[in-house]
Amino acid sequence: MSTAVERFAALWDSLAPIGRAPSGPLDGPAGSGYLRYAWTHGDLDCREWFVEEALDRDLDVETDGNGNIWATWCPAGVDEQMPAVVTGSHLDSVPHGGAYDGPLGVVSALLAVDEMRARGATPTVPLRLAVFTEEEGSRFGVACLGSRLLTGSIAPDKALALTDRDGLRLSDAMRIGGVEPDTVGADPTRLAAIGAFVELHVEQGRWLVDAGQPVGIATAIWPHGRYRFDFRGAGNHAGTTRMDDRHDPMLTYAYTVLAANKEARLAGAHATVGRVSVEPNATNAVPSSVTGWLDARAPDDEILKMLVEAITVKATDRATRDGTQVAVTAESASGATTFDPDLVARLRAVLPDAPLLATGAGHDAGVLASRVPAAMLFVRNPTGVSHAPEETASDEDCTAGVAALADVLTELACR
Amino acid sequence: MSTAVERFAALWDSLAPIGRAPSGPLDGPAGSGYLRYAWTHGDLDCREWFVEEALDRDLDVETDGNGNIWATWCPAGVDEQMPAVVTGSHLDSVPHGGAYDGPLGVVSALLAVDEMRARGATPTVPLRLAVFTEEEGSRFGVACLGSRLLTGSIAPDKALALTDRDGLRLSDAMRIGGVEPDTVGADPTRLAAIGAFVELHVEQGRWLVDAGQPVGIATAIWPHGRYRFDFRGAGNHAGTTRMDDRHDPMLTYAYTVLAANKEARLAGAHATVGRVSVEPNATNAVPSSVTGWLDARAPDDEILKMLVEAITVKATDRATRDGTQVAVTAESASGATTFDPDLVARLRAVLPDAPLLATGAGHDAGVLASRVPAAMLFVRNPTGVSHAPEETASDEDCTAGVAALADVLTELACR
Repeated sequence: MSTAVERFAALWDSLAPIGRAPSGPLDGPAGSGYLRYAWTHGDLDCREWFVEEALDRDLDVETDGNGNIWATWCPAGVDEQMPAVVTGSHLDSVPHGGAYDGPLGVVSALLAVDEMRARGATPTVPLRLAVFTEEEGSRFGVACLGSRLLTGSIAPDKALALTDRDGLRLSDAMRIGGVEPDTVGADPTRLAAIGAFVELHVEQGRWLVDAGQPVGIATAIWPHGRYRFDFRGAGNHAGTTRMDDRHDPMLTYAYTVLAANKEARLAGAHATVGRVSVEPNATNAVPSSVTGWLDARAPDDEILKMLVEAITVKATDRATRDGTQVAVTAESASGATTFDPDLVARLRAVLPDAPLLATGAGHDAGVLASRVPAAMLFVRNPTGVSHAPEETASDEDCTAGVAALADVLTELACR
Repeated sequence: MSTAVERFAALWDSLAPIGRAPSGPLDGPAGSGYLRYAWTHGDLDCREWFVEEALDRDLDVETDGNGNIWATWCPAGVDEQMPAVVTGSHLDSVPHGGAYDGPLGVVSALLAVDEMRARGATPTVPLRLAVFTEEEGSRFGVACLGSRLLTGSIAPDKALALTDRDGLRLSDAMRIGGVEPDTVGADPTRLAAIGAFVELHVEQGRWLVDAGQPVGIATAIWPHGRYRFDFRGAGNHAGTTRMDDRHDPMLTYAYTVLAANKEARLAGAHATVGRVSVEPNATNAVPSSVTGWLDARAPDDEILKMLVEAITVKATDRATRDGTQVAVTAESASGATTFDPDLVARLRAVLPDAPLLATGAGHDAGVLASRVPAAMLFVRNPTGVSHAPEETASDEDCTAGVAALADVLTELACR
């Protein structure tokens, strides 16, 4: 008979080849990561993998109007209308992302069902596994899109008009993926049928390394915003334009990148400029425009607001000096999330050794927390790295995560 | 009978619609410029336009083994083997470039032939019009590629292996354009047949505006180099990675951009970072790598060398602070060019009002200057802008340029 670690490794390995990036400039010891953008082949193959694994476990599988997949274990005699216990995560990735962010929660959910059955634990309410779509926002720019649509925190018209970098609209991408977009939008009936949601996720930091524990419980998510900084100047010849005659938006951009870093350190917050777009992006031309995207997160809403204001002031001051213009647009903003205290208390009772921690990363659990009792489990990540190929977790810690999730689901669903 | 200004405008307007960029983010008062990259449709249509105009003037047209086009006026009784007087420029553009950089020299060459014929001036040596390919280096990264191949200053193997941003090789692009690449390489016979080369070009600055003259004579080209700065760090999650745990190459890049600007001002030189590439270029990821391209030019070789060294030192120091690495690669380097003093003196004698000026921009005339007597004429540019849609010249100044070129060619070719 196989061990729990072997069972984890076998299921994990069946998903691992799907959606891998071809080796390239990012090639390294950990390869070049995953390209599992929502509704692309990499993502669609992951979804198909999940549906097959769920059907193998005799779960009832359905895709909701927003493209999220649900697989239900409703034992004979259990009322299907009872508020369900739900667990799950997502399968899409950031560009060249790691293997664990999202998929670990989905794999663990499937294995937790196996574990509960092996233990003889039978739910007295429906137990559902969920796979949310476009959690990363890597393709259409809005993170947690599937759960936001479900809860109605983004309007269907606005979502369907979102476009990817090639100009393809979400509605067309969904149709290519086999989901008719005319059913997109808030689904209060489905929400009302959720009694509790617990998402397991790889930790995206090193708190659990420091704590010496394989599994932790999340208490809160930092507030988070994405802000587009459009810098406009005057395109010109790089060789002949006198330095004093330039209106170079790359200078304003560069100064803003450094200012964002400095202000975040001062505020005890996080600020990152990881994406940039330049016109015309030619070696021998002073750019006419540069756009940078600021990702900012902070321990509370007030600190986040002050951080973004401070960066904006510095960018604007520098633009005056450079003879350029800057416009700042908030593309998304999520307030602080505090997970359901009663649910967190029940998780603590089941997992007394698991430390409590807050996180800077957004999750579907954070979106659902506004509407249903929600909480999260984290699994130790030795590198602390996430959103990159070096993101990892040991098979032993992942197996501890599966056991913890099975304990929690048993506590919540089998009383 | 039409005026010279009307004749200029008519020929100019016949070329103007070819290779225009569709309106887009750069759309503005001057439109979004031209996309005439070498061997793309925009460029091929321009080449076809030139061939038709040359044939209309009974010139003998041929394309050399490097894809440069030559159109020859060799009146009856003139020995075809005599060293020719050559004029011309290029038709390709930078991304979203202006209309005048390159095409003005080609249009002026055609109209100078008309003007000479109207005056009854007949060459006593062959008079050739040349269109050089890939002058901007916008597609394959090496500026003045057509003239460099002609003079043998780049090896055929190296050139043919160059790829564009989509990975297409020069050899394949040439084949698509109808030129078999097996003939690429130095052409000493053709070079030996050039007695003098004069290139007319729109000015890429405001010396002639300040001087109050429509036409100037170039004496020199500043030395010029393109340097690739590869910054490597550690990709990570933008939300969860503590600021102190980051190795963010975007910070090193940003610092280097500002350092390049400052060092260039101190040196009385020009430095520009107008092109950048980021991996994975996602809003919610600390980048794993950032590549920036430095365009640097200076009044002499020593100042250029010191400038690039100073920028490299600053980038390296900052990389140590950021926990990143930086590698600098010189992608191209051109030493200072001084145009042929005797030829410049003859141009001054013909055009006594034309001021002498040096330029920071590279040109085919600069490449040819290492092998044949070469010089340049510049036409006033009221905006001083180049490599952008705002680049311009009045029809009256362009007509003055045609007259000046006709004067010069008559002096050189009709003695």
